[in-house]
Amino acid sequence: MADTAGELDIIFTAPHPDDIEIGCGGAVAKLVKQGHRVGIVHMTTGEPTPLGNPQTRMKEMRAAAEVLGVAVCEMIGLPNRVLMDGPEARFALASVVRKYRPRILVSFAGRTVAASPDHYQAQLITEATRFYSQLTKWDERFNGTEPHRVDHLLYRPVGRGAETELFSAKLVVDITETIEKKLAAVACYKSQFPPERFERLKHYLLSRAGTEGASCGFEYGELYAVPRPIGVSDLTTPFGPWPLPSPIEKIKE
Amino acid sequence: MADTAGELDIIFTAPHPDDIEIGCGGAVAKLVKQGHRVGIVHMTTGEPTPLGNPQTRMKEMRAAAEVLGVAVCEMIGLPNRVLMDGPEARFALASVVRKYRPRILVSFAGRTVAASPDHYQAQLITEATRFYSQLTKWDERFNGTEPHRVDHLLYRPVGRGAETELFSAKLVVDITETIEKKLAAVACYKSQFPPERFERLKHYLLSRAGTEGASCGFEYGELYAVPRPIGVSDLTTPFGPWPLPSPIEKIKE
Amino acid sequence: MADTAGELDIIFTAPHPDDIEIGCGGAVAKLVKQGHRVGIVHMTTGEPTPLGNPQTRMKEMRAAAEVLGVAVCEMIGLPNRVLMDGPEARFALASVVRKYRPRILVSFAGRTVAASPDHYQAQLITEATRFYSQLTKWDERFNGTEPHRVDHLLYRPVGRGAETELFSAKLVVDITETIEKKLAAVACYKSQFPPERFERLKHYLLSRAGTEGASCGFEYGELYAVPRPIGVSDLTTPFGPWPLPSPIEKIKE
Amino acid sequence: MADTAGELDIIFTAPHPDDIEIGCGGAVAKLVKQGHRVGIVHMTTGEPTPLGNPQTRMKEMRAAAEVLGVAVCEMIGLPNRVLMDGPEARFALASVVRKYRPRILVSFAGRTVAASPDHYQAQLITEATRFYSQLTKWDERFNGTEPHRVDHLLYRPVGRGAETELFSAKLVVDITETIEKKLAAVACYKSQFPPERFERLKHYLLSRAGTEGASCGFEYGELYAVPRPIGVSDLTTPFGPWPLPSPIEKIKE
Amino acid sequence: MADTAGELDIIFTAPHPDDIEIGCGGAVAKLVKQGHRVGIVHMTTGEPTPLGNPQTRMKEMRAAAEVLGVAVCEMIGLPNRVLMDGPEARFALASVVRKYRPRILVSFAGRTVAASPDHYQAQLITEATRFYSQLTKWDERFNGTEPHRVDHLLYRPVGRGAETELFSAKLVVDITETIEKKLAAVACYKSQFPPERFERLKHYLLSRAGTEGASCGFEYGELYAVPRPIGVSDLTTPFGPWPLPSPIEKIKE
Amino acid sequence: MADTAGELDIIFTAPHPDDIEIGCGGAVAKLVKQGHRVGIVHMTTGEPTPLGNPQTRMKEMRAAAEVLGVAVCEMIGLPNRVLMDGPEARFALASVVRKYRPRILVSFAGRTVAASPDHYQAQLITEATRFYSQLTKWDERFNGTEPHRVDHLLYRPVGRGAETELFSAKLVVDITETIEKKLAAVACYKSQFPPERFERLKHYLLSRAGTEGASCGFEYGELYAVPRPIGVSDLTTPFGPWPLPSPIEKIKE
Repeated sequence: MADTAGELDIIFTAPHPDDIEIGCGGAVAKLVKQGHRVGIVHMTTGEPTPLGNPQTRMKEMRAAAEVLGVAVCEMIGLPNRVLMDGPEARFALASVVRKYRPRILVSFAGRTVAASPDHYQAQLITEATRFYSQLTKWDERFNGTEPHRVDHLLYRPVGRGAETELFSAKLVVDITETIEKKLAAVACYKSQFPPERFERLKHYLLSRAGTEGASCGFEYGELYAVPRPIGVSDLTTPFGPWPLPSPIEKIKE
Repeated sequence: MADTAGELDIIFTAPHPDDIEIGCGGAVAKLVKQGHRVGIVHMTTGEPTPLGNPQTRMKEMRAAAEVLGVAVCEMIGLPNRVLMDGPEARFALASVVRKYRPRILVSFAGRTVAASPDHYQAQLITEATRFYSQLTKWDERFNGTEPHRVDHLLYRPVGRGAETELFSAKLVVDITETIEKKLAAVACYKSQFPPERFERLKHYLLSRAGTEGASCGFEYGELYAVPRPIGVSDLTTPFGPWPLPSPIEKIKE
Repeated sequence: MADTAGELDIIFTAPHPDDIEIGCGGAVAKLVKQGHRVGIVHMTTGEPTPLGNPQTRMKEMRAAAEVLGVAVCEMIGLPNRVLMDGPEARFALASVVRKYRPRILVSFAGRTVAASPDHYQAQLITEATRFYSQLTKWDERFNGTEPHRVDHLLYRPVGRGAETELFSAKLVVDITETIEKKLAAVACYKSQFPPERFERLKHYLLSRAGTEGASCGFEYGELYAVPRPIGVSDLTTPFGPWPLPSPIEKIKE
Repeated sequence: MADTAGELDIIFTAPHPDDIEIGCGGAVAKLVKQGHRVGIVHMTTGEPTPLGNPQTRMKEMRAAAEVLGVAVCEMIGLPNRVLMDGPEARFALASVVRKYRPRILVSFAGRTVAASPDHYQAQLITEATRFYSQLTKWDERFNGTEPHRVDHLLYRPVGRGAETELFSAKLVVDITETIEKKLAAVACYKSQFPPERFERLKHYLLSRAGTEGASCGFEYGELYAVPRPIGVSDLTTPFGPWPLPSPIEKIKE
Repeated sequence: MADTAGELDIIFTAPHPDDIEIGCGGAVAKLVKQGHRVGIVHMTTGEPTPLGNPQTRMKEMRAAAEVLGVAVCEMIGLPNRVLMDGPEARFALASVVRKYRPRILVSFAGRTVAASPDHYQAQLITEATRFYSQLTKWDERFNGTEPHRVDHLLYRPVGRGAETELFSAKLVVDITETIEKKLAAVACYKSQFPPERFERLKHYLLSRAGTEGASCGFEYGELYAVPRPIGVSDLTTPFGPWPLPSPIEKIKE
Repeated sequence: MADTAGELDIIFTAPHPDDIEIGCGGAVAKLVKQGHRVGIVHMTTGEPTPLGNPQTRMKEMRAAAEVLGVAVCEMIGLPNRVLMDGPEARFALASVVRKYRPRILVSFAGRTVAASPDHYQAQLITEATRFYSQLTKWDERFNGTEPHRVDHLLYRPVGRGAETELFSAKLVVDITETIEKKLAAVACYKSQFPPERFERLKHYLLSRAGTEGASCGFEYGELYAVPRPIGVSDLTTPFGPWPLPSPIEKIKE
């Protein structure tokens, strides 16, 4: 049995450096603040892009990771723009998961038809990775890492349609106290977001966090989803720390 | 044929004074600005409420109508808190619709299980009203008004679930230039929104408008829906004035 | 402010005595065992039925309540078979809710088109009741009870279609240690379930509890749903006490 | 036990004379041709309408019933345009169902927001009627008729959204050999469909029957739905008489 | 035209030996009992697994096939754990289908995100295979087999979400008299299910079969689905042999 | 910046010559008639098929394009029957899109499980192509073409389930005046549709166009869909040229 010193509690993965910061930055920073050991795994360099280059992007990636305070930030070198689900991509991602042995794995979810097809391929790769992490007798295909069972798969819905609509349970995490850290992490990607573009993005991120948070009474929140019901021993547990209802409810009588 | 001098282009209806301002204020103000003749029909006084009273509420209602600049604002006296779909409520609302003869009727949509059941009953009443407006041979049940065919029924989704998920088409109207007017109209309801409460509501309204607008590239927007496909002669028409895509798309490559 | 000595933590309500036992008996018994103060509110006597009569049914109801160990069991005398959502039914149910001031209210959900229309009407009444419970200035319509805000509305899906498919989150509570109590509570309704019928029902209840539990790794479970996302401060919280995955997952590799 | 001489196999019910002919005329005529005893129950006279009157409408109704060849055609006198689900409407419809004791009851399904609210209320009444038909100890509320269990509830989807989308199973019945009878039955309603209007309606009915039939390889078909899965002893049974696939499939290779 | 002596009526296919037994064993045994010629096609050896090896697994596979009494059981040697939809996998499966010329082909359906990604890839392969079976002019890619049109594609829903929710029709087959055979077939896979694990699996399989059967009034059932409406000549046909309703319905009045 | 002389307004793409004619022929002809510059891109030759050969199919393709009057018709030589989404297919299609620089790209949508898997793969390729068209720094992978942003992605739903049900907006274009041209274009594919088969197809196409048109009051229409809400500046715009409601609505009162 491996030493657990280097183990993580939770890994977030997405195809391009800046995806996790934009989509999940608030939850990542909150988890770190709460003492969890959090890892980020970027599947590709995210390059080429119109204004970036690989060296700059890697620097920005590390700066963002530092802002968020994650214990681990890796980029596993799968190909940007042409990411495809398949055994090799799964082996690559699962090798990292087996190395860090998290309880929870977080994936993007949904087809982003107005943007890159990489996002949906990343979802397929991540879903398969959860299973691959526990495979026995194939350690050599996973850089010699040992099998590990990931207890839970979480989704961050970013795309449209069926993939995001039919989850069994949606959760909203309160990111009111880390929304600034999220914006700061995104701001590290200067090559991707020149000032005017960053302002538009910031407006969008604040609006979306305000809306997602409102459904549970938080000033800012991030929405996640799970593919099966949430199991509880005590039916009142999920409602323990629930704050006041959303603004829209409070104004109706 | 009646004189068309008093006719309206579009009527928005909802159960309580402040509902339309909160839900549809941006679109109302925009339509007024564009030269359309817009009417608002509140079904009830919205009273009692913890901090309000009927006289104050009616004053606030009129002040909000003035801010929005609507041609007509009526309150038709159906009962607050116990609004139920049925012939009498339909006759009352349809009488107003037949009087003003709009081309378009806008209804709230969805069950607001965390708030008043009036909202969903109002949807049922409004759907029936569209049909009642055109009924012949029953003018005496409609205050002597003549039959009128409402061409289109539009929904403003406010509740949950099936009622809001299965529309045939969703539209987002750009309210960037009227978001301030919307907030100003809501602010008229001082009895309902003391300062601290108004601040929370404002945060929510800005967030939601920012999110709904973003899906079509607007700084602020309001989402509407129609219960059947949009018919077009030229397939490119709906895409004529579409602005740039949303911020999230612009940042992905 | 009222003395809290008689307050409840959670109220389950359904139209007919035996509904809650059949649908929610496992969760009720579990909550009682965990020290929560639980109430049951039957809307009608459930009579007439082919084999029952009101006196017998009330005796059976009380026996079942005793088996489950609930703090309160009331029958509020709305009409069986012709239950309809409307102000009077809402006032009746809300008066009881305002009296016991629970944090959580549990409703049946869905249209049971192969059985009684009362179930769906009960859902509508319960949803409205949550709102009615907090209404101010109308204490006289609620037997003089004071306004009370119910924090959370929970559903027990029993019917078909849209009403049960589009919830924001599903929960499964582990009832392995109370499945026997559930069956014992149902068995109290001897007038409704003669031996052969009870055996068929028992087979069904065990099968359904086994299936619902399996989705979260419990031997037996009951499925509940909430109409909005679950708000959390710590994203890992919902997964804290989650047991091993379901049998079907354990056998796949 | 009643004499079964007057019993029916299947009853179709809808609010207005001409509804069943338009929606279900092909299936009705086909069932008659196959030797089933079929009944039609119109809930209202369908009057007033712009061009009709009660006497004419009843004559047209009877003429249409004769064209279709049904064993029974009744109009039960509920109120047109203001039809509402409730005990009295249910008693009225269930009395007829208990009199004729059919195995199958067919209801319209869905909200027709561009047309009459009666259609959806009729669905609610019919769903409740299935249950009311079997009620014991209340014979006096059903004109002295005896309880009867309707085995199956079938839907004819006519409206939009959730009500029509979430059925457990859809069926298409081949009406190729009765499409002409269906049109002839509709044509009986001359007061409702003057020549030019009838032509448009005929075009629509042929198009829809052609489309619904195509999904199962029929020249013309009518789509029905059931609210739960179809139970079979032999899994191949539903596919026994299934004709060739649809044209669109036949042309793809 | 080929000799039909070796033809099958129906083929079930899934990726791993034990999948069909667990998912479809009841229907397979029932069809055999009813005199249909049934085939099973396992796409891979299912190995490696923690406790198994290829030789043992093949023996277990054959033992299970014998218990079920199928006419044909083949394993076509596609790669376990890394199964991917693509031309070669389709050619391999279609070659077997063209050899046995069944009327019906049964596929797993759905993404099993808590288990192997092979299941969903198998669905894609099977859907394509239906089409590939009928391809002309490419006999050499199918081991020289002749084109064959599979009349019907059936699904066995095993995964989550969109893939399993939006079928046109669901069927439940009564497996009450073959549930024991199903369990016996699964029990053949001793390498996969040591005693304690088998007990948990048995509990799950009995619960699920009890629940799926209950929706159609069977003691035990298996749920299947079809991607388009069921075509019928006589609308009453699907309801001919339908047994009594489910227990839950029988107890509600 | 390239000369815009050769640019197109809109490109329709699908896997096999005859797909676009059958699915979109009415809209293509209408757009041409309205003065738009329209292109058709067939991904494969569509051969082999039982009765066709590549030379004949190409001739038929060109004849159909001439009937429709499109400015451009290309066949890009991807492999028929084994079309798979992946980088190479995306590069090939995007190269053509970058060459013609259309504002709108139209894709088939949905899994056609009763027909070729190519249709769904084509959807995936087309979605990715929209993104690939704008990629910078990779001109050499796109035949030296320059990046181009396609403003809008449109879908023509042809398959089943989730892929076609969850669009944000559906549009129906009036093809009453081009339905004949559509049929004439399809008729060019004589190798695919011998007379008897063509008659069945014609019946289907007229029925479907009649049904899709009816939902918006057109004699004949074609249904399209978009993956996000339609953005408008004036909320009344989408309803400007909307004709009278559908026949079914006009007959209901």
